[in-house]
Amino acid sequence: MKRLFYPEAVAVVGASRDPSKVGHGIFRNLLRDFDGPVYPVNPHADELLGRRCYPSLLELPERVDLAVIAVPARVVPEVVREAGEAGVPYCVVISAGFSEAGNEDLERELVRTARKVGVRLVGPNCLGIINARIGLNASFAAESPPPGNIAFVTQSGALATSVIDWFSSGDVGTVGVGFSKFVSLGNAADLDFPDFLEYLAEDDDTDVVVLYLEGVKDGPRFLDALSECAGRKPVIVLKGGRTEAGAEAVGTHTGSLAGSGEVYEGLVEGEGGIFVGGFEEAFDAAKLLAKAGPPTSDRVLIVTNAGGGGILATDALHELGFELPEPAGDPSVLPPEAATGNPVDVLGDADAERYRVALEEFADPDRYGAVMVILTPQSVTEPVKTARAVVEFVEEFPGPVIGVWMGRHSVALGIRVLEEGGVPTFPSPERAARALYHAARWAEVL
Amino acid sequence: MKRLFYPEAVAVVGASRDPSKVGHGIFRNLLRDFDGPVYPVNPHADELLGRRCYPSLLELPERVDLAVIAVPARVVPEVVREAGEAGVPYCVVISAGFSEAGNEDLERELVRTARKVGVRLVGPNCLGIINARIGLNASFAAESPPPGNIAFVTQSGALATSVIDWFSSGDVGTVGVGFSKFVSLGNAADLDFPDFLEYLAEDDDTDVVVLYLEGVKDGPRFLDALSECAGRKPVIVLKGGRTEAGAEAVGTHTGSLAGSGEVYEGLVEGEGGIFVGGFEEAFDAAKLLAKAGPPTSDRVLIVTNAGGGGILATDALHELGFELPEPAGDPSVLPPEAATGNPVDVLGDADAERYRVALEEFADPDRYGAVMVILTPQSVTEPVKTARAVVEFVEEFPGPVIGVWMGRHSVALGIRVLEEGGVPTFPSPERAARALYHAARWAEVL
Repeated sequence: MKRLFYPEAVAVVGASRDPSKVGHGIFRNLLRDFDGPVYPVNPHADELLGRRCYPSLLELPERVDLAVIAVPARVVPEVVREAGEAGVPYCVVISAGFSEAGNEDLERELVRTARKVGVRLVGPNCLGIINARIGLNASFAAESPPPGNIAFVTQSGALATSVIDWFSSGDVGTVGVGFSKFVSLGNAADLDFPDFLEYLAEDDDTDVVVLYLEGVKDGPRFLDALSECAGRKPVIVLKGGRTEAGAEAVGTHTGSLAGSGEVYEGLVEGEGGIFVGGFEEAFDAAKLLAKAGPPTSDRVLIVTNAGGGGILATDALHELGFELPEPAGDPSVLPPEAATGNPVDVLGDADAERYRVALEEFADPDRYGAVMVILTPQSVTEPVKTARAVVEFVEEFPGPVIGVWMGRHSVALGIRVLEEGGVPTFPSPERAARALYHAARWAEVL
Repeated sequence: MKRLFYPEAVAVVGASRDPSKVGHGIFRNLLRDFDGPVYPVNPHADELLGRRCYPSLLELPERVDLAVIAVPARVVPEVVREAGEAGVPYCVVISAGFSEAGNEDLERELVRTARKVGVRLVGPNCLGIINARIGLNASFAAESPPPGNIAFVTQSGALATSVIDWFSSGDVGTVGVGFSKFVSLGNAADLDFPDFLEYLAEDDDTDVVVLYLEGVKDGPRFLDALSECAGRKPVIVLKGGRTEAGAEAVGTHTGSLAGSGEVYEGLVEGEGGIFVGGFEEAFDAAKLLAKAGPPTSDRVLIVTNAGGGGILATDALHELGFELPEPAGDPSVLPPEAATGNPVDVLGDADAERYRVALEEFADPDRYGAVMVILTPQSVTEPVKTARAVVEFVEEFPGPVIGVWMGRHSVALGIRVLEEGGVPTFPSPERAARALYHAARWAEVL
């Protein structure tokens, strides 16, 4: 799949001059960020956004690795045939109007044609694909996600647009979180979850994989590919249609792996995958794993300037099965009123230096597999300086260090410093604990 | 307690010229927003921020309703004695150094003195109190929360500062969410949860109460007051120390209502309170109830432009026990490809008008007790116009209408329009469903 994600040249079939058309958006996205040549294919136009148009794939000046197709459904099989003749190995079929609209025959014809001419398909009825690491946005998403190490493969193109919108917002909690590949599967008439799992398992640009899946066609093959990939890097599975009502909303998936959410959960976790309960939870876990990796043990140290925050964190971690052993350091490094159990309460008047001292003294990497640092904005609190102290400490600590800067207004800059420094942050102890739980389950320390 | 929350005049004992001192911050907070006279009491200064200082409460030019005390702990009983003599009915004792620091004797002396002279106490060792509706910020929080209809009573002052910081941030998801009263209980040596619950039950400025509690002293009295208040308005209980480890972090609470999180959960829900599992969850539920009230039945309609979002919402609602009956409207008002079951999928190319039509046609108030509207930013999506259509529709629908504008960047303005129009929004279907669940449980429709 190297040539799908790292093409030398790309063509857009159905590239349109009408900015309201999908074929226009895709061409513009590709032109904007992609380094190689991008050819518009449109028999009714001479020129598009300054590029010469070609009447068909057969008349391009060079062989392209990827053709993105946005023409009426009935024409797509013929375009794919031409792609095969022109030596194009991969087609991303954006066009809708296939099995999802009841036109199963047309979809079968499409697949038959592709097989015959040796072309592999993404879609049809999809948003497209993105390789954010090389600026390849072969989709009609309005924006490009920031580059990074998370791959998202989704059966819902709309969820992909939401995720791109979320992580390209510059929102402080998303700073430094980025993506390698986006794949919208659409009807997955040809290439499907197992193909992408097999590829992503080997992909050096990807450290964490997130799947949004509603159903799979070949259960055993999916589980094999999941097992293979999850053995090498975390694979987070967000299942749509976990409940009976949800499955009804998904519609009938002929040949889908049957079973309820619990069955899926068991199967996914049996293969080493991470089964999550919701949208935010999926990307919370992805962020933690992408930035900081899994905990090295099930023992967590909490450092806090707020009793209440420390107690909520203790509850959440304990409920999820973590251990909170007391630290072995010298209590006299902190004021006598400070609590030096676990949580270590550095007190409401703690400055950045006191957090630094507490981390140095108590957060022993041999004793703890992760550290949660909680800050609430009190009178003399230093959200930014404390963030810097945490970022420095991270270099010395092998497991993840997580920041919970509770509030918004006066802690936002601190959150930015943490995220830029590779420290994943969460707005509440419970969100942080749950993300850590998924990471720990994957690493099998819990 | 009217004179505590709506004082005619206030004094700050220990008002300091040193800006790093708590006594300075409190005085500045009061001067900034409060309408009535604020008197600094400080025998060592003539003047503070342009106000004449008085040497003691006994020498003020008029009787005040509230004295905020921020002097060393050992002096506090004497100040309270003077407050009694000066006819001050309420003292908020900010000063720390009482039972929380092992000085139980001093705390007993403080309470004895207060009883003797007929003064009621908030604290000691607390952040203070706020009545955001009249600009009374008798606390050392750096900011004031926006005015509104949520009261927060907390055993952790630090969590209060976090909440104030969060909701004064102008963050789109918090627009139009505000507070009536903030009470930081500190050691709660005198006034405690039951007193405030009794008061808030009758308080017309308060529609929703949130408690952060670690332990209660008089279980039966607490449950009585909870029952009384929860019968009139939602009371959300966030319990710190739900687990054994969490309870250990709380420390020993002599005479506390014993028992694990499950025991508390049972007791709280038995009295009609809302037991929540975390910090964000508490304020998600509070926001929904404060803005839109509880659902009128357990039947929810989902309207979405994204299949994936609708399916995740269906799963979440179904898992929590909601019903999702199919709508009875005329399917022909939507394009033939649209799904007119539940979820109603208005399709990825839906504009605001199509959402409007779908709501008008399918969201029958006799059939549904709540509506969840989901929007993902696709090519032709109109996040702001659609938000306006939803805000208009709210007038016609008696139950809550909830917005889930998934993404951040291009949906932020739409979220603002929704929140300003009284439509609570959540970043994911699961967060929305859980908030609705708590509201439905309180209203006993689930």
